[in-house]
Amino acid sequence: MLTYDMTQHGDYSLYEYLYLCVRADIEAGVIAPNQKLPSKRALAQNLGVSLVTVEGAYTQLVAEGYVRSEPRRGFYAADLVPGGAADGGAARLLRSAAGGRVLGRGTASLFGESELQTAISGSARSREAAPGFTGDSRVGGMLSGFGGGAEPEGDFAPTLIADLTGSAAATGVFPYAQWAKNMRSVLSQETEESLVGQLDSRGSLRLRRAIARYLQGARGMAVSPSQIVVGAGAQTLYGMIVQLLGRSLRYAVEDPGYGRLSRIYGANDVELVHLPMDGDGVRMDALRKADPNVVHLMPSHQFPTGRVYPVSRRYELLAWAAEDPVRFIVEDDFDCEFRLAGRPIPSLASVDTMGRVIYANTFTKSLGPAFRIGYMVLPPELNQAFDEYLGFYSCTVGALDQLTLAHFIESGEYERHVSRLRSHYRKVQDALVGALRGGSLGPRVSFEGLDAGLHFVLRLQDPRGEDELVSLARERGVAMRGLGDFFFGSAAAGGDGRAFLVSFSGLHADAVEPAVRALEEAWG
Amino acid sequence: MLTYDMTQHGDYSLYEYLYLCVRADIEAGVIAPNQKLPSKRALAQNLGVSLVTVEGAYTQLVAEGYVRSEPRRGFYAADLVPGGAADGGAARLLRSAAGGRVLGRGTASLFGESELQTAISGSARSREAAPGFTGDSRVGGMLSGFGGGAEPEGDFAPTLIADLTGSAAATGVFPYAQWAKNMRSVLSQETEESLVGQLDSRGSLRLRRAIARYLQGARGMAVSPSQIVVGAGAQTLYGMIVQLLGRSLRYAVEDPGYGRLSRIYGANDVELVHLPMDGDGVRMDALRKADPNVVHLMPSHQFPTGRVYPVSRRYELLAWAAEDPVRFIVEDDFDCEFRLAGRPIPSLASVDTMGRVIYANTFTKSLGPAFRIGYMVLPPELNQAFDEYLGFYSCTVGALDQLTLAHFIESGEYERHVSRLRSHYRKVQDALVGALRGGSLGPRVSFEGLDAGLHFVLRLQDPRGEDELVSLARERGVAMRGLGDFFFGSAAAGGDGRAFLVSFSGLHADAVEPAVRALEEAWG
Repeated sequence: MLTYDMTQHGDYSLYEYLYLCVRADIEAGVIAPNQKLPSKRALAQNLGVSLVTVEGAYTQLVAEGYVRSEPRRGFYAADLVPGGAADGGAARLLRSAAGGRVLGRGTASLFGESELQTAISGSARSREAAPGFTGDSRVGGMLSGFGGGAEPEGDFAPTLIADLTGSAAATGVFPYAQWAKNMRSVLSQETEESLVGQLDSRGSLRLRRAIARYLQGARGMAVSPSQIVVGAGAQTLYGMIVQLLGRSLRYAVEDPGYGRLSRIYGANDVELVHLPMDGDGVRMDALRKADPNVVHLMPSHQFPTGRVYPVSRRYELLAWAAEDPVRFIVEDDFDCEFRLAGRPIPSLASVDTMGRVIYANTFTKSLGPAFRIGYMVLPPELNQAFDEYLGFYSCTVGALDQLTLAHFIESGEYERHVSRLRSHYRKVQDALVGALRGGSLGPRVSFEGLDAGLHFVLRLQDPRGEDELVSLARERGVAMRGLGDFFFGSAAAGGDGRAFLVSFSGLHADAVEPAVRALEEAWG
Repeated sequence: MLTYDMTQHGDYSLYEYLYLCVRADIEAGVIAPNQKLPSKRALAQNLGVSLVTVEGAYTQLVAEGYVRSEPRRGFYAADLVPGGAADGGAARLLRSAAGGRVLGRGTASLFGESELQTAISGSARSREAAPGFTGDSRVGGMLSGFGGGAEPEGDFAPTLIADLTGSAAATGVFPYAQWAKNMRSVLSQETEESLVGQLDSRGSLRLRRAIARYLQGARGMAVSPSQIVVGAGAQTLYGMIVQLLGRSLRYAVEDPGYGRLSRIYGANDVELVHLPMDGDGVRMDALRKADPNVVHLMPSHQFPTGRVYPVSRRYELLAWAAEDPVRFIVEDDFDCEFRLAGRPIPSLASVDTMGRVIYANTFTKSLGPAFRIGYMVLPPELNQAFDEYLGFYSCTVGALDQLTLAHFIESGEYERHVSRLRSHYRKVQDALVGALRGGSLGPRVSFEGLDAGLHFVLRLQDPRGEDELVSLARERGVAMRGLGDFFFGSAAAGGDGRAFLVSFSGLHADAVEPAVRALEEAWG
């Protein structure tokens, strides 16, 4: 029920004041588009004003188009501002005007720190964070592609057949029914004390036990639940890693890599270097030259290249880390569940005998974005440091979600769910690759990184540039991104032809054929 | 099902190797205490070994007490390590030893940044974060009190009648049944697309609309949903505020204040000053002298003093912020729902015409720690900056929880729930204050901050020191903290007698009388 303090009408008459209040709420989106308004009688009663006052306000709102009257149904808010972002004139009449703007500066925070700024060379913020960034449209385009839900879909939505950019959320992922069942069982089985008692900064012990058992079975990792820290998704955990290890250390990520990852480290104000890769992973010579303290890697399925670090490079990296006490590796195992062929390669963490690898993973790829739970496994030395430096934090995931997930894993449903998903994704990938190979583009295409994860690299023999080919595909309704989008500084070297990321986790099986036909038309 | 790679048995016989694997998992807690082990036959089949091998391993595990055999029921892991934190001997036989420790340094992260460190004067980290901190046992005690679930309860748990320190989680808070109902209705009403489509970095528009309407009704605040950012609890939001405004700005908090808040800013590596307070809030002369850019306040119910900033001090603070473009106020409205008497004072944000107030609140006090959702309301200028600098982040709260909470608010259940809670807390506070006033301590006690929130200050006329009185209370089973615990640098001035924080949100109604009797014995 709408509630306004009618004693605040000031110089306005009561009906004018009510009209302004309702109009302001509609303009601001507080009253949602098409939301039903209370009946005149109910509102009058609620506000303690006469029916005539409400009738006057409603009449004016209808006359001016803020509200529509539907005969025998009632009054509905008009759909003025899709997205609800506008702050309209009525609010200005009721509230004072907002202060002057001081934006438009090229720093990653509103008030950049000059002394830090100058200390950072080659950092992500200097390349990425400037809002008016225009120097490199390729990188700019990449970043806007990671903008998430704020991204205007209108660009290509009208004819979109398939979104292979990785920004489309996968549907068919979240196991609604099982989740609800597990939550009911948590709510009925757990005592209230066990629910509210889950306040350990690392997260629920029960969930951490379930994760440890899962890692044992699925990844062959022998970890203690006491090494595990649960957090609200990978980005939260990476922020904690910076707080744990220190903001003055030098961090490194893979180039090409995941643009959002660079932005996360940039927003945490650390020096960030981008390490060029060869076919086996980050180049050891580049790593030694850049001399970071912390290197963030995706060894089991690199994004975007789809490469798997061979065992030899893994040992080289562990040996590098062992040379100095202030060297650590963040092992980002983001889609290890979706190895589609062959045997998994042991995680770096599982062969790390020096305690230098922080293993990080999330449930986002397997359960979808409907909830946000990630975890990291700390080596013993850092594990103790976590308690000492960050043990004051509360865990960023609520106990109810944690216990529900624990039940879900313990019951075996999680593994069965992942297994179903894996065979679904294998079918989609097989269909997509098969259709491309078997169609008119067949003689010109090749593939990389098909064994693991939810994306691969498509190479096309074509004289045209990646950007042009991406535009042509988009015109035909297929959104995708050139591999060049993911390079930060190193040249997009290696491999024949033009290369594209194909992220198929959001692709419906019945969109495979239309998408391939569209690509054949676009690139024919 | 337990799975081990039996080809890795090395020099051990198969049964010895299996024995070590299971023992290591029991010691590490990977196999939970009292967890049922697979039958011998099933395990042999799963591992591809003979039944004799498993029999040999199980016999040895039982003989050594790692496993107990229950006739006709099967084998169960023993309960060796309550808490599951130990890393036992078998693991060491199977895994290599961990690397050397390099801990024990007095910085807030493992590898402190000397150049930042020297730039920070009077910051929280220098006072609080040193793990081996011994200089001021009062502050040290305060910090350990905020350690959350890692806090050893053994200190006083055996005879604990009441925990009034604020670290006890409130029970009876979480509306399980309604929550489950709302989640079912989200799962049945929402399409999958709407659930996975809730990826806006600010959070679900539907939840933000519900919060905006709630703020309108409960706090008289006219805010647009587009100004709201949802995050995984207050600590996550404060970290974002630092990322948004900049890490080189000077931040200030109230003294006395909330110790964890200082640690959060400290872990975010900002310069932090503590502002002494008078009876109306932070002292304006101290504010001007310290000259921070951002001041974090709890004007509607200060922790721990329970004071409410009067309107005059609020306007002084807004005027201060208006003097310079790089001055902001974080309004921490953490328990505004629980004003127990009188009319609420308008929030600072609602009278801020210059766009300098960031309003922050959470649902933790009203819904308990079973889930973790907070939000902040950004003024227009910062709102735009958020999109530009931090819009790349994903929202840290999963869509399912957000939509369930939105339903819960929209249906009016949230307000009814808060209303029920409020009257429960009013009764508990009335009973507690009444019993203290009416009992043998009556002539010596007085109270402050009774009008609002879930804590108040108890003053006792007594020649003994706060620490001694706290110890005496604890010996009788009442955990509480002296107000001196919450001071950072300013003298604990003002008021008669010894002062104690009484945080009663975790106090059961039937524990009121025993707790008061215990205090009477302790302090008689």
